[in-house]
Amino acid sequence: MTLLLNPRDYETVARERLSQSVYDYYAGGAGDEITVRENERAWTRRRLVPRMLVDVSACDLRTTALGASLSMPIITAPCALNQLAHPDGELAVARAVSAAGTAQVLSTLSSTSLEDVAAAAPAPRWFQLYCYRDRSITHDLVKRAEAAGYVAICVTVDVQRPGNRERDMRNGFRVPPNVRAMNFGTAIEDTTDGSALLKYINDQFDPSLTWEALDWLRGITSLPIVVKGVLSPADARLAVAHGAGGIGVSNHGGRQLDTVLSSCDALPAIVDAVAGTAEIFVDGGIRRGTDVLTALAMGARAVLVGRPYLWGLAVDGERGVLRVLTLLRDDLALSMALAGTPTIGAIDQALLARTTCE
Amino acid sequence: MTLLLNPRDYETVARERLSQSVYDYYAGGAGDEITVRENERAWTRRRLVPRMLVDVSACDLRTTALGASLSMPIITAPCALNQLAHPDGELAVARAVSAAGTAQVLSTLSSTSLEDVAAAAPAPRWFQLYCYRDRSITHDLVKRAEAAGYVAICVTVDVQRPGNRERDMRNGFRVPPNVRAMNFGTAIEDTTDGSALLKYINDQFDPSLTWEALDWLRGITSLPIVVKGVLSPADARLAVAHGAGGIGVSNHGGRQLDTVLSSCDALPAIVDAVAGTAEIFVDGGIRRGTDVLTALAMGARAVLVGRPYLWGLAVDGERGVLRVLTLLRDDLALSMALAGTPTIGAIDQALLARTTCE
Amino acid sequence: MTLLLNPRDYETVARERLSQSVYDYYAGGAGDEITVRENERAWTRRRLVPRMLVDVSACDLRTTALGASLSMPIITAPCALNQLAHPDGELAVARAVSAAGTAQVLSTLSSTSLEDVAAAAPAPRWFQLYCYRDRSITHDLVKRAEAAGYVAICVTVDVQRPGNRERDMRNGFRVPPNVRAMNFGTAIEDTTDGSALLKYINDQFDPSLTWEALDWLRGITSLPIVVKGVLSPADARLAVAHGAGGIGVSNHGGRQLDTVLSSCDALPAIVDAVAGTAEIFVDGGIRRGTDVLTALAMGARAVLVGRPYLWGLAVDGERGVLRVLTLLRDDLALSMALAGTPTIGAIDQALLARTTCE
Amino acid sequence: MTLLLNPRDYETVARERLSQSVYDYYAGGAGDEITVRENERAWTRRRLVPRMLVDVSACDLRTTALGASLSMPIITAPCALNQLAHPDGELAVARAVSAAGTAQVLSTLSSTSLEDVAAAAPAPRWFQLYCYRDRSITHDLVKRAEAAGYVAICVTVDVQRPGNRERDMRNGFRVPPNVRAMNFGTAIEDTTDGSALLKYINDQFDPSLTWEALDWLRGITSLPIVVKGVLSPADARLAVAHGAGGIGVSNHGGRQLDTVLSSCDALPAIVDAVAGTAEIFVDGGIRRGTDVLTALAMGARAVLVGRPYLWGLAVDGERGVLRVLTLLRDDLALSMALAGTPTIGAIDQALLARTTCE
Repeated sequence: MTLLLNPRDYETVARERLSQSVYDYYAGGAGDEITVRENERAWTRRRLVPRMLVDVSACDLRTTALGASLSMPIITAPCALNQLAHPDGELAVARAVSAAGTAQVLSTLSSTSLEDVAAAAPAPRWFQLYCYRDRSITHDLVKRAEAAGYVAICVTVDVQRPGNRERDMRNGFRVPPNVRAMNFGTAIEDTTDGSALLKYINDQFDPSLTWEALDWLRGITSLPIVVKGVLSPADARLAVAHGAGGIGVSNHGGRQLDTVLSSCDALPAIVDAVAGTAEIFVDGGIRRGTDVLTALAMGARAVLVGRPYLWGLAVDGERGVLRVLTLLRDDLALSMALAGTPTIGAIDQALLARTTCE
Repeated sequence: MTLLLNPRDYETVARERLSQSVYDYYAGGAGDEITVRENERAWTRRRLVPRMLVDVSACDLRTTALGASLSMPIITAPCALNQLAHPDGELAVARAVSAAGTAQVLSTLSSTSLEDVAAAAPAPRWFQLYCYRDRSITHDLVKRAEAAGYVAICVTVDVQRPGNRERDMRNGFRVPPNVRAMNFGTAIEDTTDGSALLKYINDQFDPSLTWEALDWLRGITSLPIVVKGVLSPADARLAVAHGAGGIGVSNHGGRQLDTVLSSCDALPAIVDAVAGTAEIFVDGGIRRGTDVLTALAMGARAVLVGRPYLWGLAVDGERGVLRVLTLLRDDLALSMALAGTPTIGAIDQALLARTTCE
Repeated sequence: MTLLLNPRDYETVARERLSQSVYDYYAGGAGDEITVRENERAWTRRRLVPRMLVDVSACDLRTTALGASLSMPIITAPCALNQLAHPDGELAVARAVSAAGTAQVLSTLSSTSLEDVAAAAPAPRWFQLYCYRDRSITHDLVKRAEAAGYVAICVTVDVQRPGNRERDMRNGFRVPPNVRAMNFGTAIEDTTDGSALLKYINDQFDPSLTWEALDWLRGITSLPIVVKGVLSPADARLAVAHGAGGIGVSNHGGRQLDTVLSSCDALPAIVDAVAGTAEIFVDGGIRRGTDVLTALAMGARAVLVGRPYLWGLAVDGERGVLRVLTLLRDDLALSMALAGTPTIGAIDQALLARTTCE
Repeated sequence: MTLLLNPRDYETVARERLSQSVYDYYAGGAGDEITVRENERAWTRRRLVPRMLVDVSACDLRTTALGASLSMPIITAPCALNQLAHPDGELAVARAVSAAGTAQVLSTLSSTSLEDVAAAAPAPRWFQLYCYRDRSITHDLVKRAEAAGYVAICVTVDVQRPGNRERDMRNGFRVPPNVRAMNFGTAIEDTTDGSALLKYINDQFDPSLTWEALDWLRGITSLPIVVKGVLSPADARLAVAHGAGGIGVSNHGGRQLDTVLSSCDALPAIVDAVAGTAEIFVDGGIRRGTDVLTALAMGARAVLVGRPYLWGLAVDGERGVLRVLTLLRDDLALSMALAGTPTIGAIDQALLARTTCE
């Protein structure tokens, strides 16, 4: 019986439980997967300089994101079609996130409708938005999210086109017919296989988006907006100028354009550029409490974890997601204690050594 | 059935199809092949910083090289004796390049005559020139290239002597008798084995060339001249001063002098030195659309690919070459979309992170 | 018969002799053990620049630490429960250290009482102190150490909570019932298994300690105090300000918080910060005489070795410890001769190349 | 039948021919052999920037060292007891070196007397000198070298004590009785095994040497003196101040103190420090013509090769040594041609890229 002590243990077991093609769909990335690997490595190259003789008898991981209270600075990233990992899909994630006291970011391409997810369990939930060529689709999604009580819109800007995912091509990856993008009606029924999913993205998502789209979105909702998929400081500044309250530093888990900067390495320049005018979230390669601590020390408000919760979901449904979130929370709490930073507010750049290693 | 999704897939299959000695002749390089490996690695160490919310609904890969229109900034490098890879040799390459709408650089040591290649298919074709001890040979080659409609002379300056290719020596590599340097008459008939090829280069190519030779060449043709084999900024400036319209940043695929700079690492200083007074081309290690994007961001006008097209030729003749060119084009187009640079003109140094990784 | 020429040879043999779980308890560390590995690697990345034509006919390794004479700048680190390695435990270490003419730092969690260790053999012995929630326990330990002739108190400040040691969890590591923390009476009898040990640390050690605790300690003893577990220059300065005479630059052998700086890489900034106002000791990854020489060149007064002496103890009890200490001494003596630094005082920063390698 | 194309090929075959213990004696080094490996790697990390369109029709490798003419800037290093590799030992080396037109540096611990070596073949031969506790021994060696026509004294300063060679200890390496240090009479007869050799060094070589010894040596001979074993710029300046005409930048092939700078990495600061007041020689890790070219570009006058000639000697006696020297010469000649530096004088720092790689 394997002990499941950390997210990588869950990946090991998930890999055995999932089909090769679903595992590869989740684990893989674009091109040679250089950025996939760099995302994880980059956190482990940073070196912490902990402080001693600080009272850490009570470590407090609570924070806020866009004004909502969170039990910890770790939230679940928007991943498509969670039912690929487990029949309970996004509902299991919603319940686990609620139990963990943190936030869920639900994908436009959820395999459960956004309303059903919202009804499953209370949580400060963000709706991840893809912008459609037909803006009325996008408009409706935003309004439905508002109506269902979502507290933020997280607009993904890095899927101008689907990335070059060679593992999926080699596996002939197809979404099984029972897993559907349930935020849509019959129109989406076509997306019953991989190539249809690619076709769907190419047909439906709008590759002509400019910052005007953010203005439009700003105009139709009063919810805070997080722009996710930013790697350039100039884009981060533009996002703030166009009304974003949050920046998602992300390379889509290395799944879109290979050889782009790891999200860790992109973070510092964006923190500098934004200079406190928006909250900064980061995802990509977070596997340990020390990764979270490093991200926060670099200036992130919170981190999003994607693959780790999917492995938990694949292994044990809701319980697996909760367990992964709990492992990360405990690891972060311990890391904060050992680093001499008993509160989120105590974590700052002084925790980081000036040089990276290896 | 192996899917052939990228140039490296073609190499894998080509390796099975070709004899070990022909595969090694193409794949190998000088000495310990440090520069061969660095050529590929150097591109993957650069990190891209893509821009978002740019309209990339229509990516336009068209560019010009030396005034000629190209469908994309990717052209085929001059490789000797293409019939070693496939009986259709340079004719297959000519047709594939023409179908792809790009340019071919034909080797002096082509296994098909330059006139036959020119007649095979229309394309803005460059003639790669080796300078012979007997300048009348060189003169005749230039005049024949002009007469056959070649639009540029690409003079290779880094084969003062043949490089130290130990794989070929260990394999006892010999050019089979049916593969001949068809730009020449009976005199070249001697080059029916490897040692004769080395002997031919040593006997025929002029190791005493100086910049005077470029002046001479400049005097006998009005075609634009590209000086290929430049790694030093000082040489790049000299080439321009002596009338070159293009610089080929190249280490001959790592086949001449080992431990020289990778062409990627040599590029920035040459771009700075030339400062727009000539067009800059680069070859060596280009395997992915992101490599091309990186090269263009660093200041290259276009890239030359050698081994990738040879693997395509070996696997499937003309169709294989066209497929490799199409894969590279599609990969570049996708990379441009995901980087927020929908035109060649939009690609500049801002796409590159200041630090390299790994 | 394997020759045992250096501490790593002893580890190889110890690994065969010990149970997997005890070996892992000693060899392992926190999380992904990045810092465990970096501790060793960091020393080997530094480059020495030796001096020639210095009279090295008599190399003198003698030094002092906190005023006590030592035969060499190598002392044994405080490791818990040495009877896990060998039935003679800390008594064997005491006798070997005495024979070697150096100092022993005895752990609060010794499996032999501090009085019995002191009676076993003369040596300038430090008592390593954990601070208990119940300060009377801590007070009594200090007074007992004073009474038993210990010459310094080495207070460990980096065990606010036990680190995340996954090897121990996977092994279900349990301290066997016959190995006990003998500085305590029946109360400690509960610590007969691994989880009880963790529970003990969580229950008993005080995670609310601040620099006030150092003031309190300073007030109850006139022995010199070494603050061990410092990685931050700011903490080093605070330690001196609060009366410490020594700083132990340490990350607890990589067993507490993973991804913290290696002790080698932390050392220079602390040497600068302390600027001679306290003696600096360093532990973590010392395996060779050149590691010791490097540490001294960087400004350390002496090094502590932990795992190396445990491997010696596991292989051959007292003789094994003495042999490991002798091997390190001989290796340092030879290194000093070959570096042109025949005395400890002759070793300084000029021995180090400005750049690190690999 | 293996083709022997370069020094590493010779090592491969020599390894098969020699006993493990003799192979290890030659191939191994001190401690963890970090410096042994770094010596080779450091050259391969440097990057060349070749120049084109230079007349390289006649590459001239001739140079001088300490005023003597050499056919090339590659000479044989002083290695002890060459009869371990082949019965013809130093005589074979002498003849091969003479045939190659270069210089031999003969070890004090030659297995053939210096007079017999001098009589074997003409060459500008240096005598490598170890300084004995009994200065009359040293004095006699110098006088015998002068009488036998040696043109320089190469005094080795980095064997204050024998290095920590664990391979030899593990192998129980013993010099066979028929291989003797033939520069000495019966007294040396004791050195018939490995431990006796170590004992001999410890007993006979003077570890108390200071720069006064160089003054003394300067006083007893008018031959030029090369101080070999220098890694520090300060020592290089002192050597010049005390009358040395040459500096041997060397770490004794990584056989004395591990983790010292590679000779390649030590070279630049020494070139700067000496500033042309002495000739600089370098040994350690030279295996390719490009390594030699790099060393010369960094400012070395010539390189010494040790292990490469020993492998040639082991494989094929005199012919093997000559072949290795010829391979290196040819490789250097080709490298010079391809780098655009047809003479030794044309090689300078401009050939080196500013950054190192990998």
